Amino acid sequence: MHSVFLSGLMGSGKSTLGAMVAARLGLPFVDTDRELEREAGRTVAELFSSEGEPAFRARERALALRLMRDGVVRVVAFGGGTVTNDEVRHAALDAGTLVTLRAPTETLVARTAAAGSVRPLLGGSPEAMVQRLRELSLARAAAYAECHGTVGTDRPLENALEDVLRIVARRPVAMPLGERSYVVDVIDGDPSRSTDAIAALRPSSLIVVTDANVAEARKDDLASLLRAGLAPSRVVTLPPGEVHKTLPQVAAIWDAALGQGIDRNAVVITLGGGVVGDMGGFAASTLLRGIRFVQLPTTLLSMVDASVGGKTGFDHPTGKNLVGTFHQPSHVVADLAHLSTLPDREVRAGLAEVVKIALTCDAALFEDLERAGRAVLEDRTHLQAVVRRAIELKAWVVRQDEREAGLREVLNFGHTIGHAVESGAEYTQLLHGEAIAMGMVAELALGERLGLSPSGLRGRTARLLEALGLRAEPSNAEMVAARPFLGADKKRRGSHVRVPLPSAVGACTVHPLELALLEDGPNFGSLPSAPVP
Amino acid sequence: MHSVFLSGLMGSGKSTLGAMVAARLGLPFVDTDRELEREAGRTVAELFSSEGEPAFRARERALALRLMRDGVVRVVAFGGGTVTNDEVRHAALDAGTLVTLRAPTETLVARTAAAGSVRPLLGGSPEAMVQRLRELSLARAAAYAECHGTVGTDRPLENALEDVLRIVARRPVAMPLGERSYVVDVIDGDPSRSTDAIAALRPSSLIVVTDANVAEARKDDLASLLRAGLAPSRVVTLPPGEVHKTLPQVAAIWDAALGQGIDRNAVVITLGGGVVGDMGGFAASTLLRGIRFVQLPTTLLSMVDASVGGKTGFDHPTGKNLVGTFHQPSHVVADLAHLSTLPDREVRAGLAEVVKIALTCDAALFEDLERAGRAVLEDRTHLQAVVRRAIELKAWVVRQDEREAGLREVLNFGHTIGHAVESGAEYTQLLHGEAIAMGMVAELALGERLGLSPSGLRGRTARLLEALGLRAEPSNAEMVAARPFLGADKKRRGSHVRVPLPSAVGACTVHPLELALLEDGPNFGSLPSAPVP
Repeated sequence: MHSVFLSGLMGSGKSTLGAMVAARLGLPFVDTDRELEREAGRTVAELFSSEGEPAFRARERALALRLMRDGVVRVVAFGGGTVTNDEVRHAALDAGTLVTLRAPTETLVARTAAAGSVRPLLGGSPEAMVQRLRELSLARAAAYAECHGTVGTDRPLENALEDVLRIVARRPVAMPLGERSYVVDVIDGDPSRSTDAIAALRPSSLIVVTDANVAEARKDDLASLLRAGLAPSRVVTLPPGEVHKTLPQVAAIWDAALGQGIDRNAVVITLGGGVVGDMGGFAASTLLRGIRFVQLPTTLLSMVDASVGGKTGFDHPTGKNLVGTFHQPSHVVADLAHLSTLPDREVRAGLAEVVKIALTCDAALFEDLERAGRAVLEDRTHLQAVVRRAIELKAWVVRQDEREAGLREVLNFGHTIGHAVESGAEYTQLLHGEAIAMGMVAELALGERLGLSPSGLRGRTARLLEALGLRAEPSNAEMVAARPFLGADKKRRGSHVRVPLPSAVGACTVHPLELALLEDGPNFGSLPSAPVP
Repeated sequence: MHSVFLSGLMGSGKSTLGAMVAARLGLPFVDTDRELEREAGRTVAELFSSEGEPAFRARERALALRLMRDGVVRVVAFGGGTVTNDEVRHAALDAGTLVTLRAPTETLVARTAAAGSVRPLLGGSPEAMVQRLRELSLARAAAYAECHGTVGTDRPLENALEDVLRIVARRPVAMPLGERSYVVDVIDGDPSRSTDAIAALRPSSLIVVTDANVAEARKDDLASLLRAGLAPSRVVTLPPGEVHKTLPQVAAIWDAALGQGIDRNAVVITLGGGVVGDMGGFAASTLLRGIRFVQLPTTLLSMVDASVGGKTGFDHPTGKNLVGTFHQPSHVVADLAHLSTLPDREVRAGLAEVVKIALTCDAALFEDLERAGRAVLEDRTHLQAVVRRAIELKAWVVRQDEREAGLREVLNFGHTIGHAVESGAEYTQLLHGEAIAMGMVAELALGERLGLSPSGLRGRTARLLEALGLRAEPSNAEMVAARPFLGADKKRRGSHVRVPLPSAVGACTVHPLELALLEDGPNFGSLPSAPVP
């Protein structure tokens, strides 16, 4: 059990609902405003007028952080402005479930007036209060959006209570990106989660993008989605495979959506792997200059990688993903049930990205995979925990660097050579994850030779990948075919490529390396023939 | 002459350079930190420690606003954090020329240490100062980017002085959008302005997008751009006209750029009208998930409209601009010299968008056009002032609403019916501005009938448009052809369209209107045959 934090404007029902949640979960309850008043021996209004808002915020911040770090699991009702502090908000997202409560301004005013308490940021006439609450709502919109879920309280609180408890039980991974925030649900067999998530967006119409394989393998899920009758729907079924991640397929989505006469409240749903998600996301980002989309990833790779981070696009004859955008989904539901119909080879390939994020960010996850080996694929509960952790790690990286200007570059580990290997194989011979597995090992060999990665890490990583059923070494022919594609890397700047290289298990640094070092260095000569230790 | 405001981190040279600028321009000089110390009788460090940062910022804000509003033209060196206040920063952008000074962190530290003064936000060891300056630089990047120009001061200050004076002399229109900020130069015959602006971006390569007409009419400008040797360049010449604003042309830009092996420091240059700008901007927004672009608009319409606001895209068989993105250019240079080779009809069409922005936002500009009539086209100095004012107005609207969620909707006035008329004419019979002129008059007729626009405004607007050489009334045939395209409007939400309607000259309100009202109402029946009063 984790702590529950309730946030929202004054009058949104945090204190009342907080006590109800605490009672239901059998947890202690703290209202930070009341606790501050108890500690200071003065009311919040008195603190505001005597010390000023900054001093009050400092007290509030200190209390909130203390409540998150003392090891006690509880329900906390924050003050209205508490989560506007970045440190507090991020700590709450990491420490428990953060739920934002909302209600129409008129309801907030009525409740606040009825409570009869002095609200230091309001005061004055009802009209002035409405105006001030609207301003606060606007100013805090980005902070309030960064949460695990939003619950409306303009209705019987018993119903709102059930919604809060459902969010706490689901405990989705939060992807906090201001007003572009969204959550990722990691579940195992619950089609209603997807339809609920989509219904919450109140779509005017749905464009469901999938591929022929998925439409067949997951036909029950697709049917239940359409049967839910959420909005007029159009299904676009693309030919499967990376070889079809091309402009004509994107154009087919545009044509279907625009032929349907969509408006800006339409929502694109992507049901499939990374190819479907990337193309559907790209189409959504460009239809009417950007509409919303929901990702329903059906492969392990797209669950842990493609569905988190907002990268969209398609392949160009000169290289992979060279045309695209950054466009965040509105919701992601990763349902492990989809893996039951996924070929084993694809499931194994998906583990390559899990190894990547573990090796670059989290030693504990890496060691967990070393201990489990291929058995992690047999134990669905274990697999769900691993998938969830990989998504959390990626979300943690992306939230600090949405547009790949810095930290996020570590996610490209294995991809400089891996993408080239995949391109060299013309997207048909190797799955993306298979190419990335080889790319990681090849880049670690380079890192070891340059003294940038610790000696032995290449061998250890190769052993883990092989234990998971992945080939660690490309053939000489594969490397030769890959070479021409190294220069097309998006991360190239002039004659250098920025290559992330692990400096230890769970740590990674980005190095600008000469393109020539990759093209003509030992990697493309002796490496493929060197035996794995 | 306008005031000059210098901003930047401590040690960036604001005080020294400010005094030099003031001496050259013969203006009084104020350093806000010194002025605050004089007023308070205490040093900034003492004020910080005794009153705290918020109280200091309040003093600083009040002083800055006073200096901008007392009617005295002067040079002001702001404190390092002064422009982080939105109100102060926007007031400075409106009141004069705001220049940001920058230098490497090490230079800032050396200068600050040499000055020997106590800096309240720094202190401690040189390493701690470097760290703190880096943090401040990051935290303030968005605010510092909102300015009329940036000048590096890590060199002899005499050279930096000349750069500041050049920015003051140019006085570009600032488009303040945080780190996506850019400026629009409005000039008359100076090709070096474009090459200087592009050179400042340090591009790794250039993709110059133009069309066959422009490449011929402005061949000297194109040649001088290529001759400048700024970076390896590739010219993509598209077939001219709205009829070619289609996916195959966008794909041609993608192919040319990727065939060139561009990296993320490549820059797309659009030399042409709105069609070239929209497609080139769209290609830039999607190449490698977004690279920079510079707009060199060559038509009056694209100068006042298409080059400001970041809308990019292309037409789809189901309607205009239905696929696109929001992507801000890095710089826009509107050179009126291009108009010398533009057909008269296109110049007149461009005035339609000037009338639109005047009618919705600025009564003075509308009345100025009524007084001048078509003579505004003969007087280049007057025309330059009109173009500059129209761009300022659009920038003012866009800066408050980048993504068209509210205020920006007023810019769609005339476009609901205008776009449909243009689509009905299959993009070939009517220029965009010509269709918008008719759209404005038709929408005003609707507004008058619904009592939402004042009686007589339709007639007055029609008279102005006709005085400028534009047809105000579509034919019956044009209206009939337009009808099927009304429903494809991007602004449609369900059965309603949000239609902006002027409530007076210079003021506008957006109304959600039934689509049926536009499709089957009097507009598409009796209106076209009603005589202009």
